Amino acid sequence: MNVQGKPYRTIWPAPDGRAVEIIDQAELPHAFVVRRLETAGAVAHAIAAMRVRGAPLIGAAAGYGLWLAMRADPSDAALAAAAAALLATRPTAVNLRWALDSVTAVLRPLQPAAREGAARAAADRIADEDVAINRAIGRHGLGLLQGVWERRRAAGRPGPVQVLTHCNAGWLATVDWGTALAPVYAAHEAGIPIHVWVDETRPRNQGAALTAWELGQHGIAHTVIVDNAGGHLMQRGQVDLAIVGTDRTTARGDVANKIGTYLKALAAHDCAVPFYVAAPSPSIDWTLSDGLTQIPIEERSGDEIATITGMTAAGDTATVRLVPAGSRTHNPGFDVTPARLVTAIITERGITRPADLASLFSDCLQDDRAG
Amino acid sequence: MNVQGKPYRTIWPAPDGRAVEIIDQAELPHAFVVRRLETAGAVAHAIAAMRVRGAPLIGAAAGYGLWLAMRADPSDAALAAAAAALLATRPTAVNLRWALDSVTAVLRPLQPAAREGAARAAADRIADEDVAINRAIGRHGLGLLQGVWERRRAAGRPGPVQVLTHCNAGWLATVDWGTALAPVYAAHEAGIPIHVWVDETRPRNQGAALTAWELGQHGIAHTVIVDNAGGHLMQRGQVDLAIVGTDRTTARGDVANKIGTYLKALAAHDCAVPFYVAAPSPSIDWTLSDGLTQIPIEERSGDEIATITGMTAAGDTATVRLVPAGSRTHNPGFDVTPARLVTAIITERGITRPADLASLFSDCLQDDRAG
Repeated sequence: MNVQGKPYRTIWPAPDGRAVEIIDQAELPHAFVVRRLETAGAVAHAIAAMRVRGAPLIGAAAGYGLWLAMRADPSDAALAAAAAALLATRPTAVNLRWALDSVTAVLRPLQPAAREGAARAAADRIADEDVAINRAIGRHGLGLLQGVWERRRAAGRPGPVQVLTHCNAGWLATVDWGTALAPVYAAHEAGIPIHVWVDETRPRNQGAALTAWELGQHGIAHTVIVDNAGGHLMQRGQVDLAIVGTDRTTARGDVANKIGTYLKALAAHDCAVPFYVAAPSPSIDWTLSDGLTQIPIEERSGDEIATITGMTAAGDTATVRLVPAGSRTHNPGFDVTPARLVTAIITERGITRPADLASLFSDCLQDDRAG
Repeated sequence: MNVQGKPYRTIWPAPDGRAVEIIDQAELPHAFVVRRLETAGAVAHAIAAMRVRGAPLIGAAAGYGLWLAMRADPSDAALAAAAAALLATRPTAVNLRWALDSVTAVLRPLQPAAREGAARAAADRIADEDVAINRAIGRHGLGLLQGVWERRRAAGRPGPVQVLTHCNAGWLATVDWGTALAPVYAAHEAGIPIHVWVDETRPRNQGAALTAWELGQHGIAHTVIVDNAGGHLMQRGQVDLAIVGTDRTTARGDVANKIGTYLKALAAHDCAVPFYVAAPSPSIDWTLSDGLTQIPIEERSGDEIATITGMTAAGDTATVRLVPAGSRTHNPGFDVTPARLVTAIITERGITRPADLASLFSDCLQDDRAG
């Protein structure tokens, strides 16, 4: 989508064909920095440091990471080592494993000399498929927003369609378009007035830093709120619908997503606000059913709570401590929203109730069981 | 309670009898500063700037503010002006109006010469009554924690009683003991092992800054979490009960408290975790029934979301910006938790289901209607 009026993806092969380039998301929203990564190790580090983040983008980055590994050393050992190092960066994201397995399966039967080119093609394909999937999610979700807009007009309710989102499942979390925000961008293109309530999303503030930035760059009206405020807005009729992304969805529709998603789903349910999850099929783990017992939850550093980084009035980056010295912190990165709280799941194949997710993808399920 | 091993209240008349002294809560948790306030205007400013905060403490501070006003000028006009200025600082806190009305009612019939002494006595009485109320809340709440502790032991579940709290309703929010934390301090005194999950409580981080600090100073085990995490902990059985304070409670038990309380109450309800509200009777507004439609919600400055202040590694205080320039913010300070989500209300008279709150205070209700 647009940055400073010019279209971008979040990741692309460098023009010289010897590196991959990314938008460094750790620098946002205060600086727009493009960073060049020349090795698989640099890609793994960028994922671990959340310079690239978001389940679909991590998958694409991992694909390019294997390409860079094969450029340096196309041996079986190097392939296995790079895949293991990339996989270890973020244990919750199912896309990461999916991308690594998919590229590795292409490369392993090949002679080493053929691997660099094949890896590059496979990584490009993952990136392009992500864009295609997200465009499709946007098209399907557009119908929901169009419906709300028409009902608002019919009821004489002034103002734009009010969407609430948590964390960043926008184009910065993907290669382009985003998952949860793809319907918002599609609606904006279709001329539907829209306003997004952006949860700041502690502790890493991906909403305040990334979602607000990308919506602002693309010209979409939005307002940043603290994570505590969404329930209040829903109680007061100020939210037409909520759309969030997912890091891992189970076959029955339980959703592991950024910590706090469950609380917003509870409020939406209590206030009869539709709660949608945008789930590209690579984020669905058909091997799992009960999200609460089966999805491992990443524990992140307590420093993410105890300190925060932002920009001083002088324009410098500074990190400040928020918690008293001597107080412990605990930082689970994700929570699980049970399927019963999810109104519908928006996939690239269409919109489905959680209970019907498996039938929508019955062919994939058969592939999965066969393979 | 204890600070650096020595007992403190949050507010007290200066030894020279010419000012009031407070713990400056805007400096916490990084510095312990006692500040001297010599005028009603200084008290109003301290309330507005949240150097003193918390509904019960604001009530006591307002009482001392009227005393300082009467020291300077005991006229009717000065009394009315000081009461109006103090009332304007925080529109949601019912204690503020209650304290101002109560002291004003004492002073108005008196000759100007008698007002300073009477105001000081009335303010002292408000402070002492607050301490007595909170001790009583602690005694009643202790029974709940004792019960959990006995059930944990009977079930062979190791570890301390796990309490979750939101914002700061500890002794820093009152004159002493606290409301939501009074049972925690009482249990600690009674030798019951206890651990408190402390919501950081964006946007002003009263949990991370104040609750964590006061629990740490008093030697009570605690862990700071982001506001997003409480639902996840409850889903996983890591919370035995939640206790929060209240800024205003209606006669039927709807609770206006710090923004985000409603979300925790929803999670507690969904996970069958008891959700208690510690409500000293001055925070109950018997004239209101439906909290959602009848309680005005304070809108605070969007800067509280866009920027945050903490301590740099060098030990300086710094304010950093978190939200992109050009992004709007919206900052409702409170939300309303409907009575149906409240397991019980802990008052100085005992513990009651919300539906029975009015019968527990039927004499006050009659006074209220008569007066």
